[in-house]
Amino acid sequence: MDTLKVALLGCGNVGSQVARILLEDADDLAARVGAKLELAGIAVRNVDAPRDVELPRELFTTDAETLVKDKDIVIELLGGIEPARSLILRAIDSGATVVTGNKALIATNGQQLYAKAHEAGVRLAYEAAVAGAIPILRPIRESLSGDRITRVLGIVNGTTNYILDQMDSTGAQFADALKAAQDLGYAEADPTADIEGLDAAAKGAILASLSFHTDFNLDDVYCEGITKVTADDIAAAKDAQLVIKLLAIAEKLIAEDGTEGISVRVHPTLLPRTHPLAAVHGAFNAVFVEADNAGQLMFYGQGAGGAPTASAVLGDVVSAARALVAGGPWRVEATKRQIAALPLSAVTTSYCIGLDVADQPGVLAKIAQIFATHGVSIETMRQTIHTETAAAGEKPAAELRIVTHRGPESALAATVADIRALDVVNSVISVLRVEGV
Amino acid sequence: MDTLKVALLGCGNVGSQVARILLEDADDLAARVGAKLELAGIAVRNVDAPRDVELPRELFTTDAETLVKDKDIVIELLGGIEPARSLILRAIDSGATVVTGNKALIATNGQQLYAKAHEAGVRLAYEAAVAGAIPILRPIRESLSGDRITRVLGIVNGTTNYILDQMDSTGAQFADALKAAQDLGYAEADPTADIEGLDAAAKGAILASLSFHTDFNLDDVYCEGITKVTADDIAAAKDAQLVIKLLAIAEKLIAEDGTEGISVRVHPTLLPRTHPLAAVHGAFNAVFVEADNAGQLMFYGQGAGGAPTASAVLGDVVSAARALVAGGPWRVEATKRQIAALPLSAVTTSYCIGLDVADQPGVLAKIAQIFATHGVSIETMRQTIHTETAAAGEKPAAELRIVTHRGPESALAATVADIRALDVVNSVISVLRVEGV
Repeated sequence: MDTLKVALLGCGNVGSQVARILLEDADDLAARVGAKLELAGIAVRNVDAPRDVELPRELFTTDAETLVKDKDIVIELLGGIEPARSLILRAIDSGATVVTGNKALIATNGQQLYAKAHEAGVRLAYEAAVAGAIPILRPIRESLSGDRITRVLGIVNGTTNYILDQMDSTGAQFADALKAAQDLGYAEADPTADIEGLDAAAKGAILASLSFHTDFNLDDVYCEGITKVTADDIAAAKDAQLVIKLLAIAEKLIAEDGTEGISVRVHPTLLPRTHPLAAVHGAFNAVFVEADNAGQLMFYGQGAGGAPTASAVLGDVVSAARALVAGGPWRVEATKRQIAALPLSAVTTSYCIGLDVADQPGVLAKIAQIFATHGVSIETMRQTIHTETAAAGEKPAAELRIVTHRGPESALAATVADIRALDVVNSVISVLRVEGV
Repeated sequence: MDTLKVALLGCGNVGSQVARILLEDADDLAARVGAKLELAGIAVRNVDAPRDVELPRELFTTDAETLVKDKDIVIELLGGIEPARSLILRAIDSGATVVTGNKALIATNGQQLYAKAHEAGVRLAYEAAVAGAIPILRPIRESLSGDRITRVLGIVNGTTNYILDQMDSTGAQFADALKAAQDLGYAEADPTADIEGLDAAAKGAILASLSFHTDFNLDDVYCEGITKVTADDIAAAKDAQLVIKLLAIAEKLIAEDGTEGISVRVHPTLLPRTHPLAAVHGAFNAVFVEADNAGQLMFYGQGAGGAPTASAVLGDVVSAARALVAGGPWRVEATKRQIAALPLSAVTTSYCIGLDVADQPGVLAKIAQIFATHGVSIETMRQTIHTETAAAGEKPAAELRIVTHRGPESALAATVADIRALDVVNSVISVLRVEGV
């Protein structure tokens, strides 16, 4: 039986699990691949750092540049842009297949890396970069290759889903739910990348690129995190049979000027509680895909964690290894086409607007007039008078929650701006978009 | 640009949609494949039969045997064993890649067909055979190829899920829900294959073979349909926060004698209402997969229908066509291993037993004694006295619903047999297995 040499870059949470599986399940993997997968070395910054998994010390090296040379498969799990990018380019140059779980790198440098891999005739696989263990990139690229995807809605960040789910089930405020997530290890000490939606934005860009056969730029992703979502927003959503989820949305649209394009955006989103994504609890992830012929599909599973993410990495490794054993040229990716990235203003959506208003006659008429001026129609309007707390000034004297019909984002945003300027409006408490209705 | 010749066998519900997409989306498909997909002909029994889709008359032929010769890709959508089997073998002999959606054929003759395809060095793909539009076979074969699947629970028959979901949401009896499914076209005039679980059993055999890298025989699948499920069973399940689903279950087990093996079975199953499969409504399908490293995954979508199933067929066609364009040898399937098919008696499960018992002292003691004798422990016991209907004899005087802890199926079955023989037990109303707890 032949042997394929595997180099592993990084031995953190995911890397240590990948090393464990390569060693523990060596016989099973060899049977599936038709060749032995030999873990030739693990590049780390500090050979003596403590690891989650006990691994033979002789595998470790700090010399990543030498390790990636003359390997059949290089697994990059360092994260971040450098040195990951340079090491991957070096591996490609030496003819290795590359498997990575590095979403930040793929979302920003993917185009260059694919081009290099294509030129060298080697494979670049990155299933683990989006939604951890969930097989989503391969189904989009292969299984749906004879269909046309029209929309993708993804819960692709487990930390924020855990926080929002906690707020929904316990009524907790954002800060307390974040603290709980940190205590459980779901959120990092510096949670910015998660709670500001940056992590979801990188995954959204990757999903959009594959779903619409184009190269989507991370800079074109509109991104809004969950830090402004309050317990009041969650409670109001519950009253209306809705749930708030942080979604990465990629959809095909025709802008007002007739341009066909793709909008990719990340923002807190109101979904009906009957939507399949509403049943995604805790730190789980799910990607909901709509296609012309297939209709609605959903892919659900663990979006993070060492062993689950390692499962996705190993799936790529085994698939690539089988292809190496079979020989023959590596298949080219689907032909890319250029399609416009549309700004948020081109999107059609529906708003749920929370307002703190003066409790006096004529307020509703003034507000309704602004909606009419912008051609936005109101679906529901619900007023709550907080007599009990009005004196203490803790809650607005009167709270209005208005859900609009679908309309252009530009008209909706202009409506909110004009309402904000009304003297009878004390403040705009929240603006959330509604999808899936 | 090169051209790949495609033959289509069958032009029913799915076939007509496949033909439509091949013709309508020819440019898009060519761009994705890197070669034109030319629909060379459609073999049907009657050229002049009415079709769902208008298609050029000159494409039709009744001479399937001639059509499959010298084609690059043959799509078989005839269903049934013959002539589908002979035509596929003929296509393989002539070097064509074969794409089929024929679950009955794959479940019974799959092993022979793979062997032939392997010998001829051609690809045999059948994503559409299980769960329609849902990409499930490719994720299992490729994405999870570096992991170990331990259990698969599938709602793989839309008709029965629709019927059970109707019974659950409206309280309808089985016969009325079946009628509703027939009126909507979800169930056929002769619904036997669906409601007796035979269709699910074929899909279960295919899922088990791929998940456990073995060749599972359809004869080894234990199969029990939903015809005996009553509105009372559904109501009792609801009371206990459970839902009844028809599941195809494939799981790795170690029998009492230490044999490691696989149990594949189809039966009505009680699931907690919080289980992700409980949220699969109407005619939708979903497959829930548990793997050592990935943890829990679920794949959800439309399990039947012309366009959704055509999407899965086209996914296989485009993937195969890309491989043909790239050239090189066709990759061999994962190595198969022999693993025992375990009988139902080797399974560990939990029972929910419904009993019509005499309303008199000492009944519970007698029943509890039988459970103790067989070493089966009781989790919950709930008695309902039907005073209002006792006189009319419509409902049992006293109804007992007993849920057991997990135990060997053999002990559970023996317990039920002994209970049935008790003179204080008028009848065993229902026996349902509980999973996912």
